[in-house]
Amino acid sequence: MTFRTIDEANLAVIDRIKKGAPVLLDVVYAKEVINELNGKVLLHAGPPILYENMPDPVQGSCVGAVLFEGWAQDEESAREMLSSGEITFIPCHHVNAVGPMGGITSANMPVLVVEDKTHGTTAYCQMNEGIGAVLRFGAFNDEVINRLRWMRDVLGPVLGKTLRSFDEGLSINPMVSRAIAMKDEFHQRNIAASLIFLKEVVPTISQLEIDPKDKTVVIQFLADTDQFFLNIMMAASKAVMDGARQIQAGTIVTVMSRNGENFGIKIAGMGDEWFTAPVNTPQGLYFSGYSGEDASPDMGDSAITETFGVGGMAMIAAPAVTRFVGTGGFYDALEISNELDAIVVDHNPNFIIPTWDFKGAHLGIDARKVVETGITPVINTGIAHKKAGLGQIGAGTVHPPIECFEKAIIAYAKKLGME
Amino acid sequence: MTFRTIDEANLAVIDRIKKGAPVLLDVVYAKEVINELNGKVLLHAGPPILYENMPDPVQGSCVGAVLFEGWAQDEESAREMLSSGEITFIPCHHVNAVGPMGGITSANMPVLVVEDKTHGTTAYCQMNEGIGAVLRFGAFNDEVINRLRWMRDVLGPVLGKTLRSFDEGLSINPMVSRAIAMKDEFHQRNIAASLIFLKEVVPTISQLEIDPKDKTVVIQFLADTDQFFLNIMMAASKAVMDGARQIQAGTIVTVMSRNGENFGIKIAGMGDEWFTAPVNTPQGLYFSGYSGEDASPDMGDSAITETFGVGGMAMIAAPAVTRFVGTGGFYDALEISNELDAIVVDHNPNFIIPTWDFKGAHLGIDARKVVETGITPVINTGIAHKKAGLGQIGAGTVHPPIECFEKAIIAYAKKLGME
Repeated sequence: MTFRTIDEANLAVIDRIKKGAPVLLDVVYAKEVINELNGKVLLHAGPPILYENMPDPVQGSCVGAVLFEGWAQDEESAREMLSSGEITFIPCHHVNAVGPMGGITSANMPVLVVEDKTHGTTAYCQMNEGIGAVLRFGAFNDEVINRLRWMRDVLGPVLGKTLRSFDEGLSINPMVSRAIAMKDEFHQRNIAASLIFLKEVVPTISQLEIDPKDKTVVIQFLADTDQFFLNIMMAASKAVMDGARQIQAGTIVTVMSRNGENFGIKIAGMGDEWFTAPVNTPQGLYFSGYSGEDASPDMGDSAITETFGVGGMAMIAAPAVTRFVGTGGFYDALEISNELDAIVVDHNPNFIIPTWDFKGAHLGIDARKVVETGITPVINTGIAHKKAGLGQIGAGTVHPPIECFEKAIIAYAKKLGME
Repeated sequence: MTFRTIDEANLAVIDRIKKGAPVLLDVVYAKEVINELNGKVLLHAGPPILYENMPDPVQGSCVGAVLFEGWAQDEESAREMLSSGEITFIPCHHVNAVGPMGGITSANMPVLVVEDKTHGTTAYCQMNEGIGAVLRFGAFNDEVINRLRWMRDVLGPVLGKTLRSFDEGLSINPMVSRAIAMKDEFHQRNIAASLIFLKEVVPTISQLEIDPKDKTVVIQFLADTDQFFLNIMMAASKAVMDGARQIQAGTIVTVMSRNGENFGIKIAGMGDEWFTAPVNTPQGLYFSGYSGEDASPDMGDSAITETFGVGGMAMIAAPAVTRFVGTGGFYDALEISNELDAIVVDHNPNFIIPTWDFKGAHLGIDARKVVETGITPVINTGIAHKKAGLGQIGAGTVHPPIECFEKAIIAYAKKLGME
């Protein structure tokens, strides 16, 4: 496809985002859909990174995955294996996947399968583990590993069976559209969407011919896990953005992601190329007893939600989040969202925000506008303890380094021969 | 209790509203808890009314209840029985109950049992039937009667069993507090609260030793019935307001209700006395093919939610409702809610509204202030077709006639010897 102007290309890209129709089809083992997951391979969040450069919580997640896969029996031998170079690391984004926080995904973890029906792109994301000690924050004690095993043996198969019994999967846009009017922004807050998901699947789960105890435990887990929808939203955002970036032109940001060392973005016109710069550390509110000194640097593929136009980019949808992430009251959220108008191309008519006087969510971050205005996207995020295993210690917002956008624009200008 | 001033009495009344702790305890047959429901007795919404003065949809509800109870086998004989004077009519409010729209409640209908744990008051309300052809809008075809029988034989017993298995019932304030931050206002919109209710009960339902088919149908009904929580909120509002109006002093409005002929209010200082005036007809938006000419006059006990401080009184909590009821956009909802500040005494710290920059919901409508300012409460309401059986044709807002408040204030002044 050729376009006369960058603006024309950008409009074509955002038109694809608007028309994306992500559908949750299945839950399967990662190895069933990601061929690269054979042998000793781990997926991680963000742009490529060496094991030795991963921050402590991500290394902790790696230890947990090695224990979960049974490649080692204790922490020490797991760490040895990880340092030895015996394990291959691949960014989730390179294999149609996204992973929260550390993002460590291994062969036998179940993943959500989301297809953008409009463009035929498919994306995968592991399921949300709930809160407390969880792999994504670098914990790997018995509780964590046992929960991962239960997700592998029970939760994944039950949800897979449930979704396969639907005629055409579960459409995600209608759930998002309802939940955004119930004050979810889909990164920090997924309470409404998780309840809507529960309501969609629970009548079917109740009819499955499976062990009644499994049924109850699965239903209880879904009822208790307020952030369950986050990972569905991540997979949906990835599927739609991958549909959009089939158009390899223009300056719309198609990936934002972090590995704890670097922040990486992609723009439509530069295809698969990463533009990276060192990550910032989130600013926010800490749980009692913790402070900014304890915070791990920014990490995770979850910023794909902001790339899609929700999360911190839809702050005004979720005024309750603004307090949780330390950005003030309703009018502060309004100001943040209004300011972000300067770096996006349009508003998404699928995701109307009643609290924004019925405007649609932000649509299409234009890297040019970021560079011109100096305004960077806002990402809502959990804050992990910088030491593995201590889990979440707060929540806040973080900005990508502007260097990523500058590098992307310079590279694109070069590509267009505008040096 | 004696108070030095009306303001002091009013503060004591609203303190009780604030401290109310409504808990959903059970679902039982109305006749088990309302002694008056023996023989041919029907409860109705609003202040007392004669059968011949009920608008058509309310008479239709009466026909349905007579058929449901098996007192007659067809419409004609039911109408004959109803006109003959053979049936005793009692306002729901006279027997600790509230009923939506027509409000017709009979002995074998299951009712929600809500107790205000702080003040020991108990209130009852039938369960929400869903949408379409339903008794509360005056429909009485086979579909309606069969659904009522299913609610009697399956839904009521299953929910009763579920709730009795909880240690101390299901606390309502925490559900309301979460759902108001998810844009429910609890009269026109109960989507979030109904989902939260589903999530609270579904793990238990999944474990009950009952026919698996019943289990699935109950779960599906709760998952599909967006307004299920409305009737829980009505019973909760009634229980709390009955706790508050044990203080028989001051000018806080303790009941607002309509029977299709008259609007009736009560104020704390005048105890059980009704102050009535002819109802208005709701203004709003109509489903395609209908207009204001088709609208039934205002009816139902559901305005107990506004009396408690939610519904139309919390319009700003639910900007999505403002469009549905035809009152405009976000800033119109804000204006309505700000204006209502003039007729209430305080804000309820239990029910924080993020979209109102984290102010609490309106608390304590002061009938004096209504008379002084000429500003009447706003009630969100469904609009029924004026002909029985055609069901809901729209949604809108309605105001109580100011005469109710004037009469109440004059009577109270007289009682205080201030003539």
